[in-house]
Order: sequence, then C-alpha cells, then structure tokens
Amino acid sequence: MSVHVSLGSRSYDIHIGTGNLSDAGTLLAAFKPVSLAVVLTDTNVQSFGYAQRVAASIADAGINARVLSVSAGEASKSIETADSLWQTLLEDGTDRKAVLVAVGGGVIGDLGGFVAATFARGIRFFQIPTTLLAQVDSSVGGKVGIDLPKAKNMVGAFHQPLAVLIDTQTLQTLPEEQYRSGLGEVVKYGESLDAGLFEYLESGVEKINRRDNDVLQKIVAGCCRIKADIVAEDEYETAGRRILLNYGHTFAHSFEIMSGYTLLHGLAVSAGSICAAKLALKLNLIDAALLRRFIHLHQALHLPAETPERYARKEAVALMYSDKKTEFGELHFVLPTGLGQCKTVKCTPQTVLDSVAE
Amino acid sequence: MSVHVSLGSRSYDIHIGTGNLSDAGTLLAAFKPVSLAVVLTDTNVQSFGYAQRVAASIADAGINARVLSVSAGEASKSIETADSLWQTLLEDGTDRKAVLVAVGGGVIGDLGGFVAATFARGIRFFQIPTTLLAQVDSSVGGKVGIDLPKAKNMVGAFHQPLAVLIDTQTLQTLPEEQYRSGLGEVVKYGESLDAGLFEYLESGVEKINRRDNDVLQKIVAGCCRIKADIVAEDEYETAGRRILLNYGHTFAHSFEIMSGYTLLHGLAVSAGSICAAKLALKLNLIDAALLRRFIHLHQALHLPAETPERYARKEAVALMYSDKKTEFGELHFVLPTGLGQCKTVKCTPQTVLDSVAE
Repeated sequence: MSVHVSLGSRSYDIHIGTGNLSDAGTLLAAFKPVSLAVVLTDTNVQSFGYAQRVAASIADAGINARVLSVSAGEASKSIETADSLWQTLLEDGTDRKAVLVAVGGGVIGDLGGFVAATFARGIRFFQIPTTLLAQVDSSVGGKVGIDLPKAKNMVGAFHQPLAVLIDTQTLQTLPEEQYRSGLGEVVKYGESLDAGLFEYLESGVEKINRRDNDVLQKIVAGCCRIKADIVAEDEYETAGRRILLNYGHTFAHSFEIMSGYTLLHGLAVSAGSICAAKLALKLNLIDAALLRRFIHLHQALHLPAETPERYARKEAVALMYSDKKTEFGELHFVLPTGLGQCKTVKCTPQTVLDSVAE
Repeated sequence: MSVHVSLGSRSYDIHIGTGNLSDAGTLLAAFKPVSLAVVLTDTNVQSFGYAQRVAASIADAGINARVLSVSAGEASKSIETADSLWQTLLEDGTDRKAVLVAVGGGVIGDLGGFVAATFARGIRFFQIPTTLLAQVDSSVGGKVGIDLPKAKNMVGAFHQPLAVLIDTQTLQTLPEEQYRSGLGEVVKYGESLDAGLFEYLESGVEKINRRDNDVLQKIVAGCCRIKADIVAEDEYETAGRRILLNYGHTFAHSFEIMSGYTLLHGLAVSAGSICAAKLALKLNLIDAALLRRFIHLHQALHLPAETPERYARKEAVALMYSDKKTEFGELHFVLPTGLGQCKTVKCTPQTVLDSVAE
C-alpha cells in the first residue's frame, strides 16, 4: 500500500510493504538521472544487512551505489559526523545529481537528511526507515537535523524526500524497547488525532504485540496519512497546525532530558501523553473515563501508563520552559479534548504541577 | 529606489539608497513580531560603525538588538565559526521569531545566511551588504553557505532574505581592490546579459571610478534587477537558466584556487570573462571587435583585461573539471554570443587551451 504526501515544496509517495526492501532500485530508477546513490546506515542496522540489500537493489537498477556507515546512536547526530560525511562526499566527487539514501532509524534519517539538505546546497534524499518510530514519525514532515551539545535538533532544515520506502519486515529485528517506543508515537496519533486508529489499536492488541505484518502495515499507513494531512497544511511549522503533532511532547522532552536521554523518545511520549491527558482532565477538557481508556491501552501495549513519579516535579516544569518551541516565554500544551481530538492550551506552571501530582 | 524580487518561496524588496542604513529599524519593524535581532558583522566592517548604526536603528524601532562580530576574512566561512554562532544563539535563548541581520560583505552574508537557514531549522534573515560585490551578487538569489577545507561553498542552502538594504555610502570606505572586484561582477552582467548596462558603464567610466553615489545606485539596482529576473525563473538552479550568471566563473574559479584565494573573486571573474570571450571568439560566437570593446571597458575600469598568463595552462583547465558545477564529468561554459547575450556551450579541454593561449 502507499500514502501520497502532497506538500508545497514537493509531493512524494510512501511505499509500505513487507519484504519490499528490494524495491529500492526500481523506485530510485524513476528519478534518473542519478549519478550516485550514497546509502547511509549505522553499525547496528548494517549488522542485519538492510543497507547492503538496498545497495544491491539499486546497483541492479543500473545506478552506482556505495554504502557509508556511522556508529549507531544519538552521538552520531553531531556536527563532527556531518562534517566527516560532507568531506567524504566531496572526496568521492559527489555531484548535485547524487541521491542520499538513508537506511535506518531516526538518527540516520535526521543526520542523512541534514547532510543531503546542505551538501552542495542540497542533493536529493530517499528515506528507508527501519524502526517503527522512524516509519510513523520522521518519514513524513521533512524535519532533518543534528544536535548541539546542549540541545537536540537545534541545527537543521526542512528537506522533503524524493520518496519513502517502508518494509515492516525490518521491524521483526527491532529490540523490544525500541518497538514499544514506536508504539508510543502510534498511540499518540490515536489519542489526539484519530479515534478510528485508537479503536483499531484497542481491537488489535494481541496482533500488535506479536508484530503481525499486516496489522503493522495498516498502522504505519494510518499514522503516515494522519501526519501527511497535518504537514500539508503547515509544511514549515508556521501556521500553528503542525503543533498538534506534539501531544505529549512537551512533557516527554523534559523526561528525556532528566533521564540523560536513556529513556527512549516514544516511551517518553507515552508517559507525556498520560501527563497531558491528566492535565486535560484537570481542566475539564476530557472526563475520567477517557483517561482510564487511554491508560488501559498503554498497559495492554506495555507502554508507560503512569506519570513517572521521579520526573513529576518542579524541575520537569522548569525544563519545559527551555524548550525551543517556547516563543516569547509562553508555554502551550497540546491537550486532548475527546477521543482523537486535541487543541493547544496555555497553562501556568502551577496548574501543570497540580495535575500531574494527582 | 527599490527592486522587487519575486520568487516561488518568497518575495522581497531590495531597498537601495545613500545614507539609508538608519532605515534598518523601520524596515525590520514591518516584520514584527521579532523577538530579537542578531546583527552579525565582522571586525573590518565593525570598525566603520555600520553594524552599530544598524543595531541602534533597530533598537529605536522597539526591537531588541545585539551585535555579534567574527574575524574578517574567508576563514570565518567555516564549520567552526558556524558552530560557535549556533551555540551563541542557543545560549542567548534565540527563538524562531528572531531575525539574523547580516551587515558586511559576501563572507558575512554567506555565513550569516547559513546559520539563519539552519538554526532551529531556519530563522528569518535580513541582508545589509556593504561591499559592491555583495550588493550586486549575493543580495539576490538566496545562496548561503560555508566552505569545507578543500572546497568553497560546498555546504549550504537556499535561504531567501526578508528584505535587503543597500547603502551605497558604505562603498566609500571600501578598499580600492575590493571596489574593483565588485566592478568585475558588474561588468559581467553587462557583457553577458544586458547591453544597456554595458553601454551605461562605458558612458559613465569617470563617475564610476570616483564612486559617484547616484551612478552607483543605478548600477546596483540594474544588476539586482538582472539577477532577480534570472533567479525568478530558476530559484534552485535546476532549470538551467541560473547558470547564465556564471559567465567568466568557470575560469575564475580555477584562477582563485591557483592564487590560493589571494585573487579577489570579482577580479578573477573579470579575467575569466575575457578568457570566456576569447573562447567565444575562437568558436565564432562573437567577432574580434566585440572582444576589443570588452577589453577596452576592463582597462578603463582598471580591471584585468588579459588572460592572466601564469594561469593559462593545463592546470587551470584540469582544475575546472573538479568544479562542483560539473555534472557527469561534462564541462559547460557560459559564453557571449553578442553584446549582453550569452549561452552555454560544451567544450573540450583542447579548445579551451587553444583559445586562451592566443
């Protein structure tokens, strides 16, 4: 199945299947001339052979391909790694007809996208996300970037891909915690933006927990569709609409910082979603039954379903104010107003503290 | 006077005057809300007080302004300087409603524009070019970037400004060689793209040489208009049209490298233009009278008017092939086909060598 993403700067398709990594060459060939395909991956992903399979498929389509690998982990989203990749591309004689193919999770997509956005003022970019989080989140939206030592994603760009290829078979090798992290974002879409998706998740808990490929394809396509519709209205995050994707994220960001980034993003979002739902309850935006329903699904999918006690303190609230999304010192939260519905609400720190303490 | 630039991604005005630096605040105020104006300049430009005058004008308009200064010179177009600026912006709590104001020559515009394009995935950018080269070249087109140790402008983006403010009074403090460098680009526009401009330059040699402000305003506006029309048709340099701005540049690029970048860009372009005209003569695209007319104007404006003998060798030609504009190993030149007219022509290295040796 596929999802079409239609944006002001570019339109492209997300091709979703199982065992379809070998379609990479055919898909890329549609964008000839391509002088070189630079397949970027990391050491973890490379151990499963995904990048090599992609490169072989591209070579079969008559396009030169080479694989570049960086160390797995967030530390590779650095200026130093970007610099090293820029210099490697230059030494290889990479020109503006080259395509960077990112095979991996969020780090590879963000780093590879940033290098593609900036090398020779921009070369094309083909995304092949291999984690659930990357498939449902970073494969739509064009946000790419690297970290500064003191702030994640602080340097970046909006750079839309030529196309996205998603093979749910790659999720079978994903460590359990990373799979749950992806599910945290999936549940976020359901709770805040799509009641139908939420109900589908409720009805499919058992298949989701055993990573059924058919169910995963439907879930990934659903999440991509939801995000694509929102991004289409607000490509550069200026119109306000795109902020709705950040349900649970203001809390999550603090939890991630306080854990020293040992807490995975989607798990932080999952905990943050429950905090946001509790805040919504405190403000009478939702009723207690809906909060219980959210908590129940989190529990069934083995996701954080309680406010993490060790983070629910003044420090977490203070940290939220240092988030780059804070403009003019105001603090907005995306809160649910019903199943699959949400809006932004301005809150005082005290209201936030009161809601999550209960 | 002003020039309107209408592009797919943004439309903006170039405001051209004499003694109008103090309009900066009023111009920026039209783009409120602005949380902070970060005025970037270099140590040379700062010594003339231009950045301080701009910052004072912005403060008078009720907008917070601060001045950041980097070392003058191409060495500041580095990853290290960009990194240091990103971190300073972060420490200052710069948010996405901030505007980066670049007051200086091409280095400050390119560096400042790149930092603005990438900080927090893009903040707004207000350009105040203070060299003739920057006024006629980098104030239109949105090309921003930094250098890699082995290749100039290899990392960058297209980031269009909110507005451009040009004060020709700043040209009065420009060192003679830099003024001539700017004239090299001005003459390029006339020779390759605008017969009327070329004739205006021929008729105004004496006033140009004594930096008459009225004539400079007309010249700057004329060049911006020419470039704006071309960029409007090919914003991201993909449609082929924008390449026409590169008359003289393929040769110039080699001369700059061979001089270790001690030869100023516009002077290299000026020498490169004559090389291109000689190649055009060799290919019967122009006649000897037109080449003589080009050379005569170069001489009158104290610009390079001969093929630099020390560069006209196989090495220069070999170097051209390492230019990032070379795609699939082919080498295209922008050559004049008449006064104010040009086209791209594919040439063998031998033809090039033969033409410039004569």
